[in-house]
Amino acid sequence: MPNPYPKVRLFVESHLEKGASVVREDDAAHYITRVMRMKEGERVALFNGRHGEWAASVHDVRKHAVELRVEEQLRDYLAPADIWLCFAPIKFGRIDYLIQKATELGASVLQPVMTQFTQSERVNEQRLRANAIEAAEQCERVEVPELKAPLGLRDLLATWPKDRILLFADESGRGRALACVLPELKDKPLGVLIGPEGGFSPDERTLLYRIAHVVGVGLGPRILRADTAAIALLAAIQSSIGDWNIAPHFQREGTL
Amino acid sequence: MPNPYPKVRLFVESHLEKGASVVREDDAAHYITRVMRMKEGERVALFNGRHGEWAASVHDVRKHAVELRVEEQLRDYLAPADIWLCFAPIKFGRIDYLIQKATELGASVLQPVMTQFTQSERVNEQRLRANAIEAAEQCERVEVPELKAPLGLRDLLATWPKDRILLFADESGRGRALACVLPELKDKPLGVLIGPEGGFSPDERTLLYRIAHVVGVGLGPRILRADTAAIALLAAIQSSIGDWNIAPHFQREGTL
Repeated sequence: MPNPYPKVRLFVESHLEKGASVVREDDAAHYITRVMRMKEGERVALFNGRHGEWAASVHDVRKHAVELRVEEQLRDYLAPADIWLCFAPIKFGRIDYLIQKATELGASVLQPVMTQFTQSERVNEQRLRANAIEAAEQCERVEVPELKAPLGLRDLLATWPKDRILLFADESGRGRALACVLPELKDKPLGVLIGPEGGFSPDERTLLYRIAHVVGVGLGPRILRADTAAIALLAAIQSSIGDWNIAPHFQREGTL
Repeated sequence: MPNPYPKVRLFVESHLEKGASVVREDDAAHYITRVMRMKEGERVALFNGRHGEWAASVHDVRKHAVELRVEEQLRDYLAPADIWLCFAPIKFGRIDYLIQKATELGASVLQPVMTQFTQSERVNEQRLRANAIEAAEQCERVEVPELKAPLGLRDLLATWPKDRILLFADESGRGRALACVLPELKDKPLGVLIGPEGGFSPDERTLLYRIAHVVGVGLGPRILRADTAAIALLAAIQSSIGDWNIAPHFQREGTL
C-alpha cells in the first residue's frame, strides 16, 4: 500500500532533493512537534516554490529545532495560472482574508496599489506574506504567490506590460459584461485591479479607460465590498478560462 | 438637481408607501441618530423585501426611537436570482463572512445543511439573519435572502425540487468542469451545495451522484476552504449565466 499523502504541508526556503536535510526552528518547530504532535519517522510534505513537492520524515527532534530528512518527490513544480491581483489595501482582518482567498484562487502575483480613495496607507508585508504562505500550504499549491511592494496607481499603469490585459472592476455601470470579455482572453497573461471601498475616483476612472490594454468590467447589480470583488473576479476567471478544468493532484482520503 | 441617493439604507419589516410612518427603536434608532448622526429632515433609503426601495426622511427624534416618514419610491421590487445556497455550517467568524458574501453575490435562499463531517452542530439563526440583513443593506439589494432552518443532507435531498439542478462542489476530481456545465443551465432554477471542511463522506458522495438532478462540479486544482468554495461557485455562476450583465441601479457618486 502506498504511503498516504502527509497531513502536514510546509513551505520552506531550502533546496529540496532526495536525502537533503531541512531544519525548522522556533515557531516552525513548535508547530510540528507541539501543535501537530509529530514524532520521529512521521512524514510531512515540503515545497519551496522551485522543486515541486517532496515527502520528508521527522528525523530528529531537539529542544528548539526539528530536522526533517527529504525522502521522495511527490510531484513536479507546476507554474501558477498567470493572473496578477492588484488591490487597494483594505483594513486589517479583511485584507488577511483577501490574501488567503486570492492564494486559494490561484493568483500568481499580489500587488498592493495605492489609489485616491485608499484608506489604509500602510501595508504589513510580512503579515500578508505569512497569510499567503499559510493559504498555499493549506490549499496544496506548490508555490506561494509573489507579494510585491505597494505602488501608486499611476506607477502601476506606467510600468504595466502592454501584452497583459488588466481587468478593472468598475461599479459605475460602464464596465463590460465578464461573460463577453473572458472568452477573448483565454491563455493570455492577465491582471485584475480592485479599488478600495468607495471605488475609483472620476480622474482614476478616466485614466483607466484611456489605456488600450485596460478593460473595465461590471460585477453585477449589487455593490460588492472590495474583498468580495477581488475573490469573485478571480473565481469568475478561473472557472471560465482558467485552471478549474484541472482536478486536485492528490485524491482526498475517502473521496471515491 | 435631483436628491442624491441616501447614504444610509435600512431593511425594515413595515409596509412601505408614500406617507407611511416607520418607527425605529432602540439599537436601530441609536444607529440612525448616534452612529450616523442623522438629523431631522435627512433622508434614508428603506426596503422591506416586498415593495421595492423608498426614500424616507427623519421626521421625529425621540429618546429611544426615531420616526421616519416615507416620501417617494426610488425603485421597484426586483426578485433575486434564483440560486439557493446550501452549506454545511462552519465555525464562528467564517460563517458570518460566508453569509455576508453570499448575500452580496445574490443567493436567494441560505440553507444550512448538516453532513457527516460537519463540525459545527449549532447554527445561530438570529446572528446569520443579522449578517444577511446588514449585507443586503450595504450591497443595495431590495430584499434579504431567506434563511432556512437547518436540514440533514438526506432530508434536503429527499425534499429537493426535481426541476432545480443542484451543483455540488466535489474536490474528489470526479466533478465536471463548470465551464462545460454552466452554459446548459442558463435561466434555470439552481442550487449549490458546499460541504464542510473535510468534504463529503464517501457514502454522501455516492448518494449525491445517484440523483439525476444533482451534478458534481470541480473547483480546480487547489483545495478550497468551505467558505471560499461557496463564494467562488456563486461568483462563477453569476458571472457566466447569472445577473452580472446588469449594472447597479444607482450610479455611484462621482463615478462617471
